[in-house]
Amino acid sequence: MNEVQRWFLEETRLGIPVDFTNEGIRGLAHPYATNFPSQLGLGAAFDRDLVRRVGEITGQEGRALGYTNIYSPILDVVRDPRWGRTEECYGEEPYLVGELGVQQVLGLQSQGVAATVKHYAAYSTPHGGRDGNARTDPQIPFRDMHEILMEPFRKAFMEAHAMGTMSSYNSYNGEPVTGSSYFLNDLLRGEYGFKGYVVSDSGAVTRLHRQHDVAKDFNAATAMAVNAGLNVRTSFKPMSQYVNALRVGLRRGMIEEAVVDARVRDVLRVKFALGLFDAPYVDPQAAPAIVRTQASQAVALEAARKSIVLLKNDNHTLPLDSKRLKTVLVTGPVADDYRALVNRYGPMKSDLVTPLTGLKAYLKDDAEVLYAKGADFTDARFPESDVFKLNPNAAEKKMLDEAIALAQKSDVIIAVVGDDHSTVGEARSRTTLDLPGHQELLVREMVKTGKPVIVVLMGGRAASINWIDRYVPGILAAWHGGEASGTALAEVLFGDYNPGGKLPITFPRSVGQIPMAVPYRSGAWSGQSKKVDPNGFGSTRAVDPLYSFGYGLSYTQFEYGGVKVEPAKPRIEQSITVSCRVKNVGQRAGDEVVQLYVKDVLASIVPFEQVLRGFERVSLKPGESKTVQFTINPMRDLKMMDINNKWGVEPGDFDVRIGASSTDIKQRAQFTLVN
Amino acid sequence: MNEVQRWFLEETRLGIPVDFTNEGIRGLAHPYATNFPSQLGLGAAFDRDLVRRVGEITGQEGRALGYTNIYSPILDVVRDPRWGRTEECYGEEPYLVGELGVQQVLGLQSQGVAATVKHYAAYSTPHGGRDGNARTDPQIPFRDMHEILMEPFRKAFMEAHAMGTMSSYNSYNGEPVTGSSYFLNDLLRGEYGFKGYVVSDSGAVTRLHRQHDVAKDFNAATAMAVNAGLNVRTSFKPMSQYVNALRVGLRRGMIEEAVVDARVRDVLRVKFALGLFDAPYVDPQAAPAIVRTQASQAVALEAARKSIVLLKNDNHTLPLDSKRLKTVLVTGPVADDYRALVNRYGPMKSDLVTPLTGLKAYLKDDAEVLYAKGADFTDARFPESDVFKLNPNAAEKKMLDEAIALAQKSDVIIAVVGDDHSTVGEARSRTTLDLPGHQELLVREMVKTGKPVIVVLMGGRAASINWIDRYVPGILAAWHGGEASGTALAEVLFGDYNPGGKLPITFPRSVGQIPMAVPYRSGAWSGQSKKVDPNGFGSTRAVDPLYSFGYGLSYTQFEYGGVKVEPAKPRIEQSITVSCRVKNVGQRAGDEVVQLYVKDVLASIVPFEQVLRGFERVSLKPGESKTVQFTINPMRDLKMMDINNKWGVEPGDFDVRIGASSTDIKQRAQFTLVN
Repeated sequence: MNEVQRWFLEETRLGIPVDFTNEGIRGLAHPYATNFPSQLGLGAAFDRDLVRRVGEITGQEGRALGYTNIYSPILDVVRDPRWGRTEECYGEEPYLVGELGVQQVLGLQSQGVAATVKHYAAYSTPHGGRDGNARTDPQIPFRDMHEILMEPFRKAFMEAHAMGTMSSYNSYNGEPVTGSSYFLNDLLRGEYGFKGYVVSDSGAVTRLHRQHDVAKDFNAATAMAVNAGLNVRTSFKPMSQYVNALRVGLRRGMIEEAVVDARVRDVLRVKFALGLFDAPYVDPQAAPAIVRTQASQAVALEAARKSIVLLKNDNHTLPLDSKRLKTVLVTGPVADDYRALVNRYGPMKSDLVTPLTGLKAYLKDDAEVLYAKGADFTDARFPESDVFKLNPNAAEKKMLDEAIALAQKSDVIIAVVGDDHSTVGEARSRTTLDLPGHQELLVREMVKTGKPVIVVLMGGRAASINWIDRYVPGILAAWHGGEASGTALAEVLFGDYNPGGKLPITFPRSVGQIPMAVPYRSGAWSGQSKKVDPNGFGSTRAVDPLYSFGYGLSYTQFEYGGVKVEPAKPRIEQSITVSCRVKNVGQRAGDEVVQLYVKDVLASIVPFEQVLRGFERVSLKPGESKTVQFTINPMRDLKMMDINNKWGVEPGDFDVRIGASSTDIKQRAQFTLVN
Repeated sequence: MNEVQRWFLEETRLGIPVDFTNEGIRGLAHPYATNFPSQLGLGAAFDRDLVRRVGEITGQEGRALGYTNIYSPILDVVRDPRWGRTEECYGEEPYLVGELGVQQVLGLQSQGVAATVKHYAAYSTPHGGRDGNARTDPQIPFRDMHEILMEPFRKAFMEAHAMGTMSSYNSYNGEPVTGSSYFLNDLLRGEYGFKGYVVSDSGAVTRLHRQHDVAKDFNAATAMAVNAGLNVRTSFKPMSQYVNALRVGLRRGMIEEAVVDARVRDVLRVKFALGLFDAPYVDPQAAPAIVRTQASQAVALEAARKSIVLLKNDNHTLPLDSKRLKTVLVTGPVADDYRALVNRYGPMKSDLVTPLTGLKAYLKDDAEVLYAKGADFTDARFPESDVFKLNPNAAEKKMLDEAIALAQKSDVIIAVVGDDHSTVGEARSRTTLDLPGHQELLVREMVKTGKPVIVVLMGGRAASINWIDRYVPGILAAWHGGEASGTALAEVLFGDYNPGGKLPITFPRSVGQIPMAVPYRSGAWSGQSKKVDPNGFGSTRAVDPLYSFGYGLSYTQFEYGGVKVEPAKPRIEQSITVSCRVKNVGQRAGDEVVQLYVKDVLASIVPFEQVLRGFERVSLKPGESKTVQFTINPMRDLKMMDINNKWGVEPGDFDVRIGASSTDIKQRAQFTLVN
């Protein structure tokens, strides 16, 4: 029994269901499936094709192993970085989430399995970021709910035809989604034209009476949910409970037979479409040749590489030169922790390369690799320590001292800090965005030794690493990179791979700045300027984020030029082409994620400050240039919810901004949409 | 020229308009008017009659000085304690705000001046708590917007008939209020039956094009606002700008003449009602005898006393015994700062008793009072220091050392910490709820001396004083108590007055817990339990607040008993009487604020966890008991917004909870509402 298997058993003893579920987070929830980066890491790669291939492999593996539907992708748009499930989302920006989500759905369903997208709806901004038994009552107005939170779902249903969806635990505006005809019928089946099935999140039906106080018992809750549009109840409770409630509902006239028929019909329709009545079985002998192939593992490595974001690189600290190093200290709780690389809703037994094993393998002929954990993920007083910081206790001090002692002997220190399942993930919301426990203290102590320090942030949410940003010259965000985490990280640290990822979420300087996510409506931040006027701002609060959405550096440099918009005066039904030239003007090959932002200059409803409407990750050799082309389809990309809550497109001027991040705008243009 | 006058001039030089405006924050915005506690302090007093008298005095002084309308009260329900204007609000709970707001309107208007209530609408939860030029785009769903934010306005218009209102800067759900027919016409004049005038907040019309991007220029913005329902534009710009825009609008057909007539008619209607066409002038000679009389000053002192909340009192540390003290150190930035006691929208030249002057006067025959400021409100790096804490610089260290030196010579230390206009107030939103600057450090240093320390929090928002709560035995919240602050504080510290105020806002342990305000919908916190389940909570975040809404101690103790609800099965149109007995079982006379909370057990829309529906501040001598009686009018007090966004009352069971705070429930009962 290896370490991972032991942990498995331990988790199971705690009553946590693991292993074979229908989930598909970071790859298929099967022990031996290919283990990809977290969705947040995939978001950072800004690469549709990559996600498509991840989806195809996950679907292929699921199909081979007898899965008929996979609970993936998560299409929640994460707006509150305290929320534990931040790492399970593609990011905070609905266009990014939608574009990647569509690819995952297409990838999965291309293999003959159904994609059950989740969590429908408005799940990702629970009141106060509270999780666990709370996770409800999002504080967001109606148009933002639609234009920000629902947009990826709309695309998944209307463009990728996802066959399934999971109804979420939460209410919105006082209506619990799992009991809401608006969400499960009018919007989903009416507006989105959905023909598939709705499964409840586990226990969501029960929450109608236990949490939301809208149903007096389970029978009433079941009738409410089924009438609203629920097809399947998922729960760890016996199925008979639900069946009995349905029988009671039918007998008492709370549910009509025609409704039950319609709910069953949705499920059968999908089963027929998947061919389950023609060929219900798969050949178990065929699976090993299909699951976690060399090719799949190569995609996992590519995904891990592409997910890495270079946050800071003063004086070309990175990449490191392996030939010049004799001794390398690897420290930090994530450095050799396999638990950070797995998820209970994903593959759990694949071979995992931790940062430490990856670095040891990479440096084996060049340098000695020392290791000291230095600090645990959390401290003895966590989570109290998040509001009441104390000095390390004796055991914690000892761990720090061990790292300090080894640091003295080393030429460079690589501190791998961040999260594992104890600080991020489902029901793992936090009160602060600071690194948990004594992890920042570990970095401070490493810096104090005078040795060069590289910080690798392997976390699942935005981290307000103000001190590290100021005093550490080289910083990478490597998320939870899946099975190839350590290999990819070593390649990036030593320059075999030039990092090109970009932040899929804003990094605030403090939890006290949230909500701080793009897009936001005109004037809602007004925080970029520090000007003090009679009604001033900037005098009493931190206004700017630490790192903006879309931000990420490279070991090379890029130049932008030649922006073009055609036509200059498009009609609403016409496509608009935006193009610009990007040139690698540095010394190394590298990737740049070219980002297209659009600003509606004037509208009948306060427009967003700017919205992402295109991104392309381009690979360029030194000196090479490419023209990147984006297509804006006004009916798809410029629609807005009008005063009557109808979708429409308003003619007028639009600003076009091409940037290397949401705030580093390189090229500007404009077009005028005409009727 | 006194200190206050000098500061005045200084502020004026900065371009900040002060002195004679129509405002009425903490009393009338006239230099010599009676200076009352901040609205937040008045909220803490939980006393309708007190607010009525404050309103009457403010109205009387206004009338005598020639004011015809007063911009008061602020009816914003403060839901985000980062927000700078937190201190200008009565609290976070709509019932409390509404009940007090009604009294202020009735008080003002009883004197023949119009009350212009503000800021209409949905102004108090700006996106991220951002202020200054941002203050827009509240993240709150529709029913909460109505049931929480609008409720006090509804009462002010429908029950107190406020004659004026101020349209706010912000948008809601993408619609700028100042350009919204929904807010300024349908809701205000339609549903609320408002017959008065709407003035814009200063520059709010301009924001329609400058900030919200819904109008292409000032002409278009003016037409939009006037058509929506605006009567009067306020601004520091010349009036001609607005008049010209109206002319342009009329000429170009953007505004109809009938609309202008209707807008003018509203203003004239109020002017006629106030008798301004009969007797437009007041006698300036009469004013001095009416403004800031002895009686008014007595009310200001009573208000200051009643606003004080006892947060902690371990081992009967308080009250202090003046006879046993030889030397008292008063320290902290608020201890002798008159600027914390005034507001640029209120009276600014009345005699002010700071805590230091109040304590000196009180102790003059008993003890020597030493003073060292110890720390400024902010430090040299504020507000950066709120996200990046640094040690004090040399000057700051010197201030601390001065306080430490005097502490050594003292028998007790009274540390008066909190806010002034540089850390709270309009455009003074913050990124954290920790005390700004080195104020907490000052308290820590005082505790380190081993001398007994009392902390007096004179702030304008919730403060996450975790360390102080743990290590300081006696803590008072005294807000900004107006002209009599120091007198009231001395009386409370030495036991001449027994504090009986209660918190009108929740004190979170961390800014990372917000939103954390009552009421909230069922299950939205689920944070009181620390239970860890498979989808657990409490394992990674701080769940409970530091101090709950409605919390406050006394120097005496109260016993509750004999709750009665009559009838047990009321009909919807029937009144319900809830009563209970409260007895002073301690040794001192004191006030208790008895609080009635109601929980709708089951509803068609997720009900609130509980709502405040009654409060009575009762004064009891030792041994005395009183029966407190509350009346619930179902149509007024149990209404909710149904699935069709219509107000209604649903029959069924309701829990009745009588408490000494929102979480310290002393008596429970139930009634069943029948059709």
